[in-house]
Amino acid sequence: MSGKVFLIGAGPGDPELITMRALHMLQEADVVVYDRLVSDEILAMHTEGARLIAVGKAPKCHTVPQDRINEILLEHARAGHVVARLKGGDPMIFGRGSEEAAFLMAHGVTVEYAPGITAAQGASCSTGVPLTHRGLATSVQYVTGHRQSDKVLDLDWKRLADPDTTLVVYMGVANIGQIAIGLMTENLPGSTPVLAVGQATSASERRLVSRLDQIAADVRKADLKAPTLFIIGKVVSLYANQALTEILERAHG
Amino acid sequence: MSGKVFLIGAGPGDPELITMRALHMLQEADVVVYDRLVSDEILAMHTEGARLIAVGKAPKCHTVPQDRINEILLEHARAGHVVARLKGGDPMIFGRGSEEAAFLMAHGVTVEYAPGITAAQGASCSTGVPLTHRGLATSVQYVTGHRQSDKVLDLDWKRLADPDTTLVVYMGVANIGQIAIGLMTENLPGSTPVLAVGQATSASERRLVSRLDQIAADVRKADLKAPTLFIIGKVVSLYANQALTEILERAHG
Ligand SMILES: C[S@@+](CC[C@H](N)C(=O)[O-])C[C@H]1O[C@@H](n2cnc3c(N)ncnc32)[C@H](O)[C@@H]1O
Ligand SMILES: C[S@@+](CC[C@H](N)C(=O)[O-])C[C@H]1O[C@@H](n2cnc3c(N)ncnc32)[C@H](O)[C@@H]1O
Repeated sequence: MSGKVFLIGAGPGDPELITMRALHMLQEADVVVYDRLVSDEILAMHTEGARLIAVGKAPKCHTVPQDRINEILLEHARAGHVVARLKGGDPMIFGRGSEEAAFLMAHGVTVEYAPGITAAQGASCSTGVPLTHRGLATSVQYVTGHRQSDKVLDLDWKRLADPDTTLVVYMGVANIGQIAIGLMTENLPGSTPVLAVGQATSASERRLVSRLDQIAADVRKADLKAPTLFIIGKVVSLYANQALTEILERAHG
Repeated sequence: MSGKVFLIGAGPGDPELITMRALHMLQEADVVVYDRLVSDEILAMHTEGARLIAVGKAPKCHTVPQDRINEILLEHARAGHVVARLKGGDPMIFGRGSEEAAFLMAHGVTVEYAPGITAAQGASCSTGVPLTHRGLATSVQYVTGHRQSDKVLDLDWKRLADPDTTLVVYMGVANIGQIAIGLMTENLPGSTPVLAVGQATSASERRLVSRLDQIAADVRKADLKAPTLFIIGKVVSLYANQALTEILERAHG
């Protein structure tokens, strides 16, 4: 009898943002392999008696290397277990879910997925800033602001500097200064509004409204903690909407 | 006593893909205003006695104009009701959720959001094709292939024709030929793989694997029905992975 692996998106933080499918898969599992970004409340939804294995990655400190994570998943599936692989956000968006899936499937293990609310969607809904909006953004793009330690950040600034697209930068805190300069060099105005959201949807969510030519300095001052993402583009101007701001402050105050 | 409006993402179709937050908001509402893309199973999760109002938009046949939808939401909120505004996917991604929110807030109505799994994520998880993947796609972009009836589709092909980005086209069935030509004109290879997914995550999900220079003809032949989206880029090559294909066919057979 052979086991299987559920690749599960846990959403951005707030346990209420998990899907029913993810919850049901988690409850079916007898081994749970989870990342650092998964909240304690979600982890607590596992079935009594399930074995919990942390493989969390802190920035610049990969607790468990990817190869070893793959092996752990394979070992438990081969031992006949139902394994829940819990990841923050969505496993298919900067989650390496498909690398793990490819490895497992190459070894004959069945993989099933549960999508999750990705961090950009969590930040959008908690701040009220949309990802697309008629007249402000006809598309949305998620990019990573991170490169492996020894490589330079070589994003294609010309393509990214689009005033009609909402740009969401994941893993960008360390490089946000370089990113802002790259975009401004390709004529995205320095006045373009930027919203940084830390620990979106969690009780300790923090927001910082700035502009492209000030965001790096503002982030340094505010000392935002990971995980943080940046929403760059005209849609952020809706955050300044007075009615909106008041309501959000009430909701969080 | 004044009411409020919950702007709720119902996800792409499969009722299991709704979040706990969306479910709880729906269950709290005594008026439910819903779109055509919301599945019957999700609609059925409303509280007994709630009033259901369909404002569904079929392509080229806007049953209820946007202004009228805004008025309906406002009337019921002002009458003191808790209104659930149910939309397919995520309300903040091609959902006009933020337009409705801006209108309501300008009239003093409190708005709260529940994000939803957007169609791209649903299609990704049901087909196993990731939206980002090391070595294949360092970013993902969602664009609309639709323009108001009298306008031409004037997408910025140069920006979009990026071999390292996964491009997901929403509302693109009618214009996919024009889109493919635009991308090829800017040097995206005709051999770039394309996956079309119709009614993703529902029982009647359909998939079509093609390439940029053949997708328009293939879609015509296959007669794909709305809602359909297109995933364009190297990540689609993972769909051809034999192990993956077998497992998916087993799961859907
Ligand atoms: C390795 S990526 C994982 C993304 C995840 N798969 C998703 O779909 O959200 C980690 C990055 O996601 C972003 N992120 C994840 N959770 C977040 C949260 N609650 N608030 C803000 N950013 C978050 C941050 O940019 C962080 O550096
Ligand atoms: C007006 S947009 C709404 C998008 C929605 N807010 C979301 O986040 O998915 C409608 C388009 O979404 C896409 N779509 C929505 N549901 C889908 C599904 N289940 N399968 C494939 N495409 C879908 C199609 O491209 C459709 O034309």
